[in-house]
Amino acid sequence: MTEFHSKIKTIQWIDNYSKMVDQTLLPYEFKYINITHGKQMFDAIKNMIVRGAPAIGVAGAHGVVLYALELEKENLSRDEFVKKLIDKADYMATSRPTAVNLMWAVEKQKEVIKNSESDIKGIVEELKQNAIKLEDEDIAINKKIGDYGAEIVPKGAVILTHCNAGALATVGYGTALGVVRSAFANDPTVQVFADETRPRQQGARITTFELTMDGIPTTLITDGMCSYFMKKGIIDMVVVGADRIAANGDTANKIGTYTVAISAKYHNIPFYVAAPLSTIDKSIKTGDEIVIEERSHDEVTHINGKLICAPDVNVINPGFDVTPHELITGIITEKGILRPDYNKSIAEVFAK
Amino acid sequence: MTEFHSKIKTIQWIDNYSKMVDQTLLPYEFKYINITHGKQMFDAIKNMIVRGAPAIGVAGAHGVVLYALELEKENLSRDEFVKKLIDKADYMATSRPTAVNLMWAVEKQKEVIKNSESDIKGIVEELKQNAIKLEDEDIAINKKIGDYGAEIVPKGAVILTHCNAGALATVGYGTALGVVRSAFANDPTVQVFADETRPRQQGARITTFELTMDGIPTTLITDGMCSYFMKKGIIDMVVVGADRIAANGDTANKIGTYTVAISAKYHNIPFYVAAPLSTIDKSIKTGDEIVIEERSHDEVTHINGKLICAPDVNVINPGFDVTPHELITGIITEKGILRPDYNKSIAEVFAK
Repeated sequence: MTEFHSKIKTIQWIDNYSKMVDQTLLPYEFKYINITHGKQMFDAIKNMIVRGAPAIGVAGAHGVVLYALELEKENLSRDEFVKKLIDKADYMATSRPTAVNLMWAVEKQKEVIKNSESDIKGIVEELKQNAIKLEDEDIAINKKIGDYGAEIVPKGAVILTHCNAGALATVGYGTALGVVRSAFANDPTVQVFADETRPRQQGARITTFELTMDGIPTTLITDGMCSYFMKKGIIDMVVVGADRIAANGDTANKIGTYTVAISAKYHNIPFYVAAPLSTIDKSIKTGDEIVIEERSHDEVTHINGKLICAPDVNVINPGFDVTPHELITGIITEKGILRPDYNKSIAEVFAK
Repeated sequence: MTEFHSKIKTIQWIDNYSKMVDQTLLPYEFKYINITHGKQMFDAIKNMIVRGAPAIGVAGAHGVVLYALELEKENLSRDEFVKKLIDKADYMATSRPTAVNLMWAVEKQKEVIKNSESDIKGIVEELKQNAIKLEDEDIAINKKIGDYGAEIVPKGAVILTHCNAGALATVGYGTALGVVRSAFANDPTVQVFADETRPRQQGARITTFELTMDGIPTTLITDGMCSYFMKKGIIDMVVVGADRIAANGDTANKIGTYTVAISAKYHNIPFYVAAPLSTIDKSIKTGDEIVIEERSHDEVTHINGKLICAPDVNVINPGFDVTPHELITGIITEKGILRPDYNKSIAEVFAK
């Protein structure tokens, strides 16, 4: 495989702070901000300054380090420090409810805290090193996902994606767009159709931004158009990311994904989910158990601060939907592509 | 049936000009403008100051009167007047390519011109009277569509609609929203879920505006959300308008309609088209023959004048899609509800 280098590093631990791209400013401004306090990280995740399941996992791990640095200054006993830090870590994990990677990464930090035999200063150092390790692992895992995925991308394929599961949803390469990057490195005739992804327009704002920045041909369409292009025979496959995958393969992802999956099925177009194994939550049997985050109504009623509808209309704004396993052709992970029956293939990949 | 009076009169002939709601200003401003020249009407249709298949039919008829008033001042011979006016009428019919009602209404005016035995002044007067007749007929037809449709709306139904086939898409009552108005008049527990309908957001801007103005409970959702609410069992039926219906029932309507229809089928939810018989184009056998208007890329890349994506991304912007007849439960017309086989039911309704 040819190595593909994305120009983007979404989130990175630097000495005593977390440096990240402020994604609320895209596509108007590509700007890094420094997050220096735990609560500031909580708000950055909640307000989607950083978003994308793998990226907010790493952000959560950074957040635990930031809280540790704050508590370190409080002259606590080691026991008090550990107790308070675990509480802060649990709080950090609540900044967004749907993406399981956040809980997973915070849990990894909690293991470091609980298993450490060092003093406070040593625990803080171990948390930093673990955060950096999670970053490196994320890129390595993404590249493996990309390489496995690239094997099933046909020559000259047009890949439809929804939302942004790209470099900007991860530390720097992408899951769904990692597949695109790896495929494009081998075959520069590969191209992408990007769903706008209302309400937050991550497809328009972020996916078109990062793909055109990396020179990958990209066409923006509105969410309702996917079936039109599928019927025309233009779309060869769909690849999306995931926020949480149940033990049976049911997949929570950005609202609108389920609609794309139904349309792909109707047109006999393969529909793939690309996600690290950390996105799989074996503790839940089916997608029915996944908590769907309800987000602010303003995301639907306003665009760029301007009202787009009657002021007194009702709104419901689920942030995610669940695509049932029967609509998913395969789940592309860092350990290969899982196929139905997912109960079996997911159990097997974790047993390896 | 209880009579329901909408507060809106979208387009109306007044003495020597056409008065219409400027729909590009909605939902910020509800303003009437006067169209006083033929070319001004051509541009009003093209730029969607007036939109919705039945409304642009009437607008086209008004446009022919406006051109007649202009030519009347040129001291032409009757033959020259007729020849030039027919040319202008044909030009008016090209202002938008997909909606057949425009061609139909212009054709009705051309018949008046060709069949008239009056002098120039008399022809102009006959065209005015015919334009007013088309307005009155449109409302009467819409109310019949509404009443037939209301019969199949379950008690307390939640009706999903896409785009705007309402009072503001017609002279003043609506086709899909005519069904809603008639159903609501009998049962005030009926409510609407309105798709935003990107790119032009007619659902958000216009449907939520006219329904809340008339006191009908309305929930705005983004286009990708339809399947989420269908799966939850919240949506009881889908009713949409149409821009052109082929002899086999294939229906062109606003882009995104086809996606909703696929999702409705997947969830076993009835999907109805509400349209006057003038929307049916028996001259085309299937939807494959319907010309799909390609619209400006700015509609996708900009909202309220502001860029929402990478500046150099590719765009394709089809204004409509075709929902194949096999996804349509019924076509609600002013002569009753047509059911499959549509080749047969459409032929029969025109033979009546």
